[in-house]
Amino acid sequence: MKHESSIVSPNAKIGKNVKIGHYSVIYDNVIIGDDTVIDGFCEIGYPTRMSNGNPLVIGKNSHIRSHSVFYEGSTFKENLVTGHRVTVREHTHGGVNLQIGTLSDFQGDCEIGNYVRAHSNVHIGKHSKVGNFVWIFPYVVLTNDPHPPSETMLGVTVKDFSVIATMSVILPGITVNEHSLVGSHSLVNKDVPTGMVVVGNPAKILCETHSIKLRNNNQQSAYPWPRHFRREYPDSVIKEWESMFGPKII
Amino acid sequence: MKHESSIVSPNAKIGKNVKIGHYSVIYDNVIIGDDTVIDGFCEIGYPTRMSNGNPLVIGKNSHIRSHSVFYEGSTFKENLVTGHRVTVREHTHGGVNLQIGTLSDFQGDCEIGNYVRAHSNVHIGKHSKVGNFVWIFPYVVLTNDPHPPSETMLGVTVKDFSVIATMSVILPGITVNEHSLVGSHSLVNKDVPTGMVVVGNPAKILCETHSIKLRNNNQQSAYPWPRHFRREYPDSVIKEWESMFGPKII
Amino acid sequence: MKHESSIVSPNAKIGKNVKIGHYSVIYDNVIIGDDTVIDGFCEIGYPTRMSNGNPLVIGKNSHIRSHSVFYEGSTFKENLVTGHRVTVREHTHGGVNLQIGTLSDFQGDCEIGNYVRAHSNVHIGKHSKVGNFVWIFPYVVLTNDPHPPSETMLGVTVKDFSVIATMSVILPGITVNEHSLVGSHSLVNKDVPTGMVVVGNPAKILCETHSIKLRNNNQQSAYPWPRHFRREYPDSVIKEWESMFGPKII
Repeated sequence: MKHESSIVSPNAKIGKNVKIGHYSVIYDNVIIGDDTVIDGFCEIGYPTRMSNGNPLVIGKNSHIRSHSVFYEGSTFKENLVTGHRVTVREHTHGGVNLQIGTLSDFQGDCEIGNYVRAHSNVHIGKHSKVGNFVWIFPYVVLTNDPHPPSETMLGVTVKDFSVIATMSVILPGITVNEHSLVGSHSLVNKDVPTGMVVVGNPAKILCETHSIKLRNNNQQSAYPWPRHFRREYPDSVIKEWESMFGPKII
Repeated sequence: MKHESSIVSPNAKIGKNVKIGHYSVIYDNVIIGDDTVIDGFCEIGYPTRMSNGNPLVIGKNSHIRSHSVFYEGSTFKENLVTGHRVTVREHTHGGVNLQIGTLSDFQGDCEIGNYVRAHSNVHIGKHSKVGNFVWIFPYVVLTNDPHPPSETMLGVTVKDFSVIATMSVILPGITVNEHSLVGSHSLVNKDVPTGMVVVGNPAKILCETHSIKLRNNNQQSAYPWPRHFRREYPDSVIKEWESMFGPKII
Repeated sequence: MKHESSIVSPNAKIGKNVKIGHYSVIYDNVIIGDDTVIDGFCEIGYPTRMSNGNPLVIGKNSHIRSHSVFYEGSTFKENLVTGHRVTVREHTHGGVNLQIGTLSDFQGDCEIGNYVRAHSNVHIGKHSKVGNFVWIFPYVVLTNDPHPPSETMLGVTVKDFSVIATMSVILPGITVNEHSLVGSHSLVNKDVPTGMVVVGNPAKILCETHSIKLRNNNQQSAYPWPRHFRREYPDSVIKEWESMFGPKII
């Protein structure tokens, strides 16, 4: 199942039914779970001293799209899906069903929860902590240095079910709390309270998230978003959501 | 004219005098017009169920630069030119002489007119409609979801001769009307009237476009821009512009 | 030292102990200094008429990471280091120990000083002039056209020891003077005075840089940053800094 033009180290530990595309390179210190697809032109397990010898672990049933580079020393649970040209550096630890969009750049030394969806061109700085069911939209940057350049690294924390919209920057050490929404093109320099919408440069509280109504049904709140958005989540998750948020609204 | 290291499906329909570079991959469901150049490391016709079986069509006399990925199911008329590492997903439909800059990311399900120039790192969300002679500068994002994440998609409309400057975000459902200018680093949350300049976060009307004077000739307005900028447009277009806007100013 | 899958022109002038990775392409008009590493999937010396026949020169002891594209006609002194998928166009001239981050896009016709560090996804427009010891963080854009599109190119100037934080745009013709700091997500439309912090959209003066204190030591100013940040600079530079700024603070 590996393309004849791929270059696969004999030391790499590769599961059953793994597909490796044209011209892709799998380095030595790599563990790939069963049923995973690696597209073409990828580099999987790019060597780095900073891995401290830890392998790159890709969970089963994952799909890494073409031209992506994953460094040695990171770990991902099952069902990882990426876009094209993703870069992921050492000591990134991702939960189940993580999606990483085209051109996204994960700088390493970060913890990402389960069912997180990062869209295209998302930049996750070192020491970020991202919870479960978080959405991060294009060109968002999670920063870490309060007075660049320095050796002080204050990572950003983004908690469960939060949403960060396009082109927003979260400043070092900030916490975006549960079920909150950062509007597009915002600069967030204060912690975002649970369930609130912040917008602007610098970002200010606009309203509670549940005061935002769905455009196609103005009787219903758009948040918490799991009440109406369920595409590609497994039944087990939807069942959990129904117990938390009630039945699906239309 | 295909490099010996390229991988070209025998099912792909490839015109006369087409050049295919080192290590590039041409998939099955692809139609490439005459005299087109595909650089190295490209993937042309990346398979996707979402194409509904439609082919990728690249018009004649096009040039796709290296490391680009075009999905099956999109169509481009003649003279397409791209930078490097462009991503174009299914159901993108581009007019003649489209330019797509390095690292740009077209998400699919969108209509792009004739003679549009997208610079580097432009993100075109699904359901965008871009007219003719539009300019879009680096790191601009056309969004579509009014309350992310949701199943509601309200695309952005950008009309003829408009210009969107660097790092601006256009919010879902917004129309940028003809001959308008969105200044750098703006967040556009209201329709932009014809011939007006908007700037800021959120963007506000600053002035009429034709009150902006050319720096090298303070007697003349910089807009409509076809009065002074004509690089790489064909004679037929310039003739049409002369009838619309008068002779070239210096 | 070249991988068997690389394609290296016999006309390229390649120094001693140069390593060329899998599938990389080295074109004709290229000079590579001793002890340099070119990773896989790179294109080095991408041909362009606009080079006027000038070669691409990469100084000794450099490291170009995978998937990068360097055009013919640019020059780099020793110890260039890049991230992945860097694009550098013709007539870019870089000093010693330049770092160019993943996905950065240098448009050419620009001058970059010594010991400059551009982080990920930095966009350097044509006619930019960047001094020595400058830091530029992710998604920063140096622009050049005061009324786009036009033939007028007013490059940005960034002077020694200045720092431009994430997602800021510098408008055409602006000078960012020595030892200044542009805060994140700023739009800079006026010259930045020496030693000042500017922030906002549009950016305004916030304070003097040396009134910003280090978080881990509130008695000490975080600027000039060479007083405390010295990672990966050579002894000769640190010695020079000690004579300029005094001994290292902790």
